Amino acid sequence: MEGGGQTRRQETRGPDLAGPDLAANVVPVVMAGGFGTRLWPLSTPDRPKQFLTEFQGRSLFQQATERALRLAPAERVLVMTSASLASQARAQAPDVPAENLIPEPLRRDTGPAVILAALVAAGRWPGAVMAVFPSDHFIGSEEAFVETVAAAVARAVEGGLGTIGIPPTSPATGFGYLELGADAEPLATQPVAAFVEKPDRARAEAYLAGGRHLWNSGIFVWRPEVLLEAARRHLPDTVAALEGVANHVGRDTFAAEARAAFERIAADSVDYGIMEKAEDVWCVPAAFEWDDVGGWEAAARLLPADDAGNRAYGNVVLEGTDGCIVLGEEDRPVAVAGMADCIIIQGPAGTLVCPRAEADRIKPLVQRILDGRQA
Amino acid sequence: MEGGGQTRRQETRGPDLAGPDLAANVVPVVMAGGFGTRLWPLSTPDRPKQFLTEFQGRSLFQQATERALRLAPAERVLVMTSASLASQARAQAPDVPAENLIPEPLRRDTGPAVILAALVAAGRWPGAVMAVFPSDHFIGSEEAFVETVAAAVARAVEGGLGTIGIPPTSPATGFGYLELGADAEPLATQPVAAFVEKPDRARAEAYLAGGRHLWNSGIFVWRPEVLLEAARRHLPDTVAALEGVANHVGRDTFAAEARAAFERIAADSVDYGIMEKAEDVWCVPAAFEWDDVGGWEAAARLLPADDAGNRAYGNVVLEGTDGCIVLGEEDRPVAVAGMADCIIIQGPAGTLVCPRAEADRIKPLVQRILDGRQA
Repeated sequence: MEGGGQTRRQETRGPDLAGPDLAANVVPVVMAGGFGTRLWPLSTPDRPKQFLTEFQGRSLFQQATERALRLAPAERVLVMTSASLASQARAQAPDVPAENLIPEPLRRDTGPAVILAALVAAGRWPGAVMAVFPSDHFIGSEEAFVETVAAAVARAVEGGLGTIGIPPTSPATGFGYLELGADAEPLATQPVAAFVEKPDRARAEAYLAGGRHLWNSGIFVWRPEVLLEAARRHLPDTVAALEGVANHVGRDTFAAEARAAFERIAADSVDYGIMEKAEDVWCVPAAFEWDDVGGWEAAARLLPADDAGNRAYGNVVLEGTDGCIVLGEEDRPVAVAGMADCIIIQGPAGTLVCPRAEADRIKPLVQRILDGRQA
Repeated sequence: MEGGGQTRRQETRGPDLAGPDLAANVVPVVMAGGFGTRLWPLSTPDRPKQFLTEFQGRSLFQQATERALRLAPAERVLVMTSASLASQARAQAPDVPAENLIPEPLRRDTGPAVILAALVAAGRWPGAVMAVFPSDHFIGSEEAFVETVAAAVARAVEGGLGTIGIPPTSPATGFGYLELGADAEPLATQPVAAFVEKPDRARAEAYLAGGRHLWNSGIFVWRPEVLLEAARRHLPDTVAALEGVANHVGRDTFAAEARAAFERIAADSVDYGIMEKAEDVWCVPAAFEWDDVGGWEAAARLLPADDAGNRAYGNVVLEGTDGCIVLGEEDRPVAVAGMADCIIIQGPAGTLVCPRAEADRIKPLVQRILDGRQA
């Protein structure tokens, strides 16, 4: 089942990435192991954001997989997920071969996942370029997405570790930023001067005005061998532990081998563990619209608004209500009367009610609930 | 199993109604067939208000049964309920013998239920006085309750059809009123001059100021023979249909006999069907605190308030929230941040959110949901 899959079954849905050489070269890696709970009570650790189908009929993961299938045939798409989420990932990406869906046995952040994917890609498709995509973000234009990735793939062939940066549209304080040496232009590759931590409001406003700082999208493009070389330098123990695991992917032996390896390695993100320490890191400023769907305001933008400015999904009954974001479940209606500008979400895990203007209260509130569960 | 239960097993919890003659004479009838949904989404047709245990650990039905057991031994307490609610009633009133729990096969309002109870009481306990109690109301002082019922029972021995009226504490427009000929004094029996429909606000204020109008509590006291005489005059077909059913109560044959009879009879309330047309109707003004728990404001008064004026029950997490009524379920927390003076109820049937000041919007809103279900 491993190796040499580069041209296998190319009669399945083919890529339309510009240029035949590029198309034959790309290994899309969809990262679907996240446990985010910022959309609680709709999302939970067991039902994370990327698998929710409430907003557009297709989940963000399904959309990410469909974009991956525009870059490469299904036989060359890898899906990294956690063991507990593997069945959801498989159900939502039936075109991806079972041996391409890699369940991480323990949570170790994105670093080990990306290294394992690179080991698999290097073994199966020598000479390919790997493109890593989070599956819990919204991307607006698929054409512009393909165009952006194509630019990054072309650059990755030459070497270095690539990122895709998002030109900011607001002074967001919730993202890390990529600092460039000169003004960012969509599709114009530049070296990354620095990775910048989440800024305060004043700095975020300066970044927005300055034009040299981009949101870090978590999309990475590189040749697997280049990533592995950097990883061997900065996370040598992780690479050593995972080298033996890659050959077991898709086999019955994988679960036990992977667990033994993951138990020995530390959690590290790609950004902190590798990218911030590596040399020759470059960035392609994105040409596409992007949203991390990091809270209810962003999620609601994916829903249509009614005449009173409400954005509702599911079994919802509104009376004299304006500007609210309301979600109900099929068997359990949500009835709202006389409310304005509130977030009212009923999900499998419970119910959340908060004014839209005070949405920053939600995260600590939900944390209290999740902590209480663990206690 | 029928008849002659008057002194049977008097060693079980005995009544403490003043005077041994009265105690031996009372047949409490607890009415537990209501389907009210004013506490939606906590209450539903399958889980009506009287059986909810959320507010005080014991349901209103349990409290009504306990009050009945202060009036008579369990062997002489009758419970009228609907077939679909019988198992809940039995579980919450385990002391009441099975043959005293009478499940109505179809909804026919309170008239037929009271007539059937009177037929059973007249057959089993000749000469007794019957006292009919709704089980979905809150009654504050059990002592004052017993005192009030004792006054009514003493009067009922002399004849006529008795009601217990509640001295109003607000200009309520949601209740029917009993109009007396003179100012009401607690425990001072008077003839009822008229039954008055739910008034508008101005009339309700006049009633409150006038002192001659009492809320109709739905508590009735009479000798079964007196009620049946009035019923034979005003609802003759109903009495005729039910006469054959009373002998089957507690037997395997009951369900079929009762269904055949109930299918033939019309729905009528005690008030409209009998009391408003009857002669010699009298009223004992209550000495006890009473609340019909007809909505979330009333229900919330049964819960303790926190320092910020919130009244919460169940799995509820509040943050910067004042003056709210909040209910959550054990497995599904309700998280509320930055809200003020709202009703936020998550129950088995869904979620309700409404400002307390706009609670009159709830009833039509819930009706839309229930109508949608039937459609």
